[in-house]
Amino acid sequence: MSKLGRPVNAISPTRSEDFPQWYQAVIAAGELADQSPVRGCMIIKPWGYAIWERIQRELDFRLREKGHENAYFPLFIPLSFLEKEAQHVEGFAKECAVVTHHRLEANGDGGLVPAGELEEPLVVRPTSETIIGAAFAKWIQSYRDLPLLINQWANVVRWEMRTRPFLRTAEFLWQEGHTAHATSEEAIAESEMILDLYRQFAEELLAIPVIAGRKPTAERFPGAVTTLTIEALLQDNKALQAGTSHFLGQNFALAQGIRFSDAAGAQQFAWTTSWGVSTRLIGALVMSHADDNGMVVPPRLAPVHVVILPVAKGDADPNVVLTHCERVASELRLCHFRGRPLEVKIDTRDSAPAAKFWSHVKRGTPIIVEIGSREADGDSVTYHVRDDEPRSKFSVARSHFVESVTDLLDGLQLRLLQRAQDRLSRGTVAVHSQAEFVARFEASAPGFVTCFAADTGSYQELLKQLGVTPRCIPTREVGRCIFTGATDSPLTFFAKAY
Amino acid sequence: MSKLGRPVNAISPTRSEDFPQWYQAVIAAGELADQSPVRGCMIIKPWGYAIWERIQRELDFRLREKGHENAYFPLFIPLSFLEKEAQHVEGFAKECAVVTHHRLEANGDGGLVPAGELEEPLVVRPTSETIIGAAFAKWIQSYRDLPLLINQWANVVRWEMRTRPFLRTAEFLWQEGHTAHATSEEAIAESEMILDLYRQFAEELLAIPVIAGRKPTAERFPGAVTTLTIEALLQDNKALQAGTSHFLGQNFALAQGIRFSDAAGAQQFAWTTSWGVSTRLIGALVMSHADDNGMVVPPRLAPVHVVILPVAKGDADPNVVLTHCERVASELRLCHFRGRPLEVKIDTRDSAPAAKFWSHVKRGTPIIVEIGSREADGDSVTYHVRDDEPRSKFSVARSHFVESVTDLLDGLQLRLLQRAQDRLSRGTVAVHSQAEFVARFEASAPGFVTCFAADTGSYQELLKQLGVTPRCIPTREVGRCIFTGATDSPLTFFAKAY
Repeated sequence: MSKLGRPVNAISPTRSEDFPQWYQAVIAAGELADQSPVRGCMIIKPWGYAIWERIQRELDFRLREKGHENAYFPLFIPLSFLEKEAQHVEGFAKECAVVTHHRLEANGDGGLVPAGELEEPLVVRPTSETIIGAAFAKWIQSYRDLPLLINQWANVVRWEMRTRPFLRTAEFLWQEGHTAHATSEEAIAESEMILDLYRQFAEELLAIPVIAGRKPTAERFPGAVTTLTIEALLQDNKALQAGTSHFLGQNFALAQGIRFSDAAGAQQFAWTTSWGVSTRLIGALVMSHADDNGMVVPPRLAPVHVVILPVAKGDADPNVVLTHCERVASELRLCHFRGRPLEVKIDTRDSAPAAKFWSHVKRGTPIIVEIGSREADGDSVTYHVRDDEPRSKFSVARSHFVESVTDLLDGLQLRLLQRAQDRLSRGTVAVHSQAEFVARFEASAPGFVTCFAADTGSYQELLKQLGVTPRCIPTREVGRCIFTGATDSPLTFFAKAY
Repeated sequence: MSKLGRPVNAISPTRSEDFPQWYQAVIAAGELADQSPVRGCMIIKPWGYAIWERIQRELDFRLREKGHENAYFPLFIPLSFLEKEAQHVEGFAKECAVVTHHRLEANGDGGLVPAGELEEPLVVRPTSETIIGAAFAKWIQSYRDLPLLINQWANVVRWEMRTRPFLRTAEFLWQEGHTAHATSEEAIAESEMILDLYRQFAEELLAIPVIAGRKPTAERFPGAVTTLTIEALLQDNKALQAGTSHFLGQNFALAQGIRFSDAAGAQQFAWTTSWGVSTRLIGALVMSHADDNGMVVPPRLAPVHVVILPVAKGDADPNVVLTHCERVASELRLCHFRGRPLEVKIDTRDSAPAAKFWSHVKRGTPIIVEIGSREADGDSVTYHVRDDEPRSKFSVARSHFVESVTDLLDGLQLRLLQRAQDRLSRGTVAVHSQAEFVARFEASAPGFVTCFAADTGSYQELLKQLGVTPRCIPTREVGRCIFTGATDSPLTFFAKAY
């Protein structure tokens, strides 16, 4: 506590004290999510959900620009569908929620028990390749129907044993793209285009720089030929897979009969892709940008850019203050930031100004404006930008603030990206021997460790001991494997990861 | 078939030949939805989903304006939660999908069986009063936290035995609003405000006039004190419940402990409401506006307002035609219709112009423009408005078309509403005796039959025989019950219904 009796930091514990607990505290204090009574499931609170809606809006626009259309497929997948692709079902069988009954009946004891057993159990979708593939098989007849470019915004369920809000939950929200193409080349190009779109989205909107590349063989999506990934490095120097794009070859087309007649009239199997990002991105935002005072929302993603707090002290006329608040708000709302009108809220809740100020700090609103009788009389505003020290507030003329507000937002967005880029650069180190590799990972915060490594899984046992996973092969660069000595081994990024 | 070998109507059977089959055919031909391999679940195809997204966008805006915030709650509801409100669980127990296992394992026979039995079964949400109520109990402490106004966009599951796309499916998409208030009056006012919002939305956007009022006692939502409803009358003169708003009294607050301390510090139970509309509205659109040539999408709801077909015949230069198409499209895109820029598509698919024309008729695109070399040379367009005869096409100067396009759209929207209003007026008849009531419902297409009827359920047995339900009590008007003779019986709307 400071001498004034106010906590020095709004979040306890701090990052350095206990990073995992700090993460939970930021989510609670920032009103992003709440625990639910359902094992492994979370409640996404209005502020967290508004951030998700911003992610949806921006990403949806970019996907449409590339010709993708949204559709909706069933939540339930018949067990027999999942069984069609052997690797796929193998990958998901251990974490499926299974519906076996379709009603409840009294157990005679005042309670209810499942009744009406289903002939075939239904799996709550962990992902939709099989059910969407079955539809594709019906919809695609001719090469004229290709490419077929479909996206779905949906909830999915994977029964995780160890959960963490946003990063790993039994139910989560995501978009899953599914496309079919006439040639292998086109499908590969699609999967690469989407990876680049995800990379740009992460950097430009989320202010999260990422390493983009392909997953080593052992880390592929079950049923994929190639899995591409974007990997972020968080403030605790752990990596996070933030989005994936899969080239599925003809695996699902063969399993489900996705066929088309080509221009010469011959029957061919299609080539498919799938790709997705999820509410996990909100976890990535917290672990990338939040600080010991709470959440920091990048301005380009913020549901609210500026919140205005009326601060009527003593015998000040609250109406005069409120009128000035409304004038500032309406002028700000005429400004545009990155293609959309500025979102401005006046917080008229019935509680103490300091409590309100701190609540918006903890939520990560980019700019907080305070207006009292001094500001009303002087036609000025007092503002705070979220990544400054909490006590740091500037008083400027109203007109000056309105003119410069988009620069303030751009500045914050840029600083967040630069800090994350600096962290990524500092946190990425090349090693040239197995001993050096091991030494790095015995340190507490190693970040990304890069080296040449044969993609044969020979390092699996060592990695298991170290709690490390291979994250990504970003380039075509090859060299001598530090584990096996094999030449032509790809440059690989390793990290401890979520 | 006509002499030209083209079907006289694009949809077979027609409405008069077989209304239920016509409905299915419109949905298939209009690419609104597809059957799925999962019992009772449908696939919402891109065009159908785009209409749903328009419904979401417009309704979401109106709900936000009234102060509601979106959030997201778990898909799964523990059985014990559902059991807390006796009427509620009674109402949903017979149609619940129940998750009992959390993984699959090999059965030794090459197949998979459910494994990992859950200690407590989870119900896939049929509605979320119980799980959201539990969160409200946690979030609400003081009168300052009220009203709490939450909305959720989600999928829900009700295991229906007889399903019909959009109107009744095992899984459907909806919004569910849940609010808590300090007083009974405020909660009642909320439920009434929402009903009026739904009514306006149906009339202004969907062009569907409705009867708004309260449900008779026996038709209430399980757990509600009062259920308000909007009821549409479809082209087969059957009624459809298109949206409901429930005043829940303190039933759920008592069951779940939603308490607050009032201004005097005393503990009180809150008063709650819930309300929703679903993808059923798309079924209502089809059954209200579609004709024997397919879907008709009201312009204010249309994902695409104008589709342009390049028609390059014989030795016409396709580039000249396409250039004219693009000029028309870009001028149209500068127009605004009801607050949003006109959505214009150029259909360059590689298929015959006539096939393309008919595909857009069947999808219900409001205006179809054809541009060939004659239009390119003459700086004109040829257009068709969806509710005209299919052969009816007008050629006008480009500039004239661009100037009048929003009037054409307004005209179509208005005609759809007027036709539906006429049908509702013609289809609503008052009766004054039980004999007259029975005679009406023995006719094939009775529409709404109105009469005074005691809200005691005394008419239930008769209605069951006739296949009729009481739909709505829209006013405070009372009179002598035609079934029991009881005075002060409310004026009630009856109909055969979906």
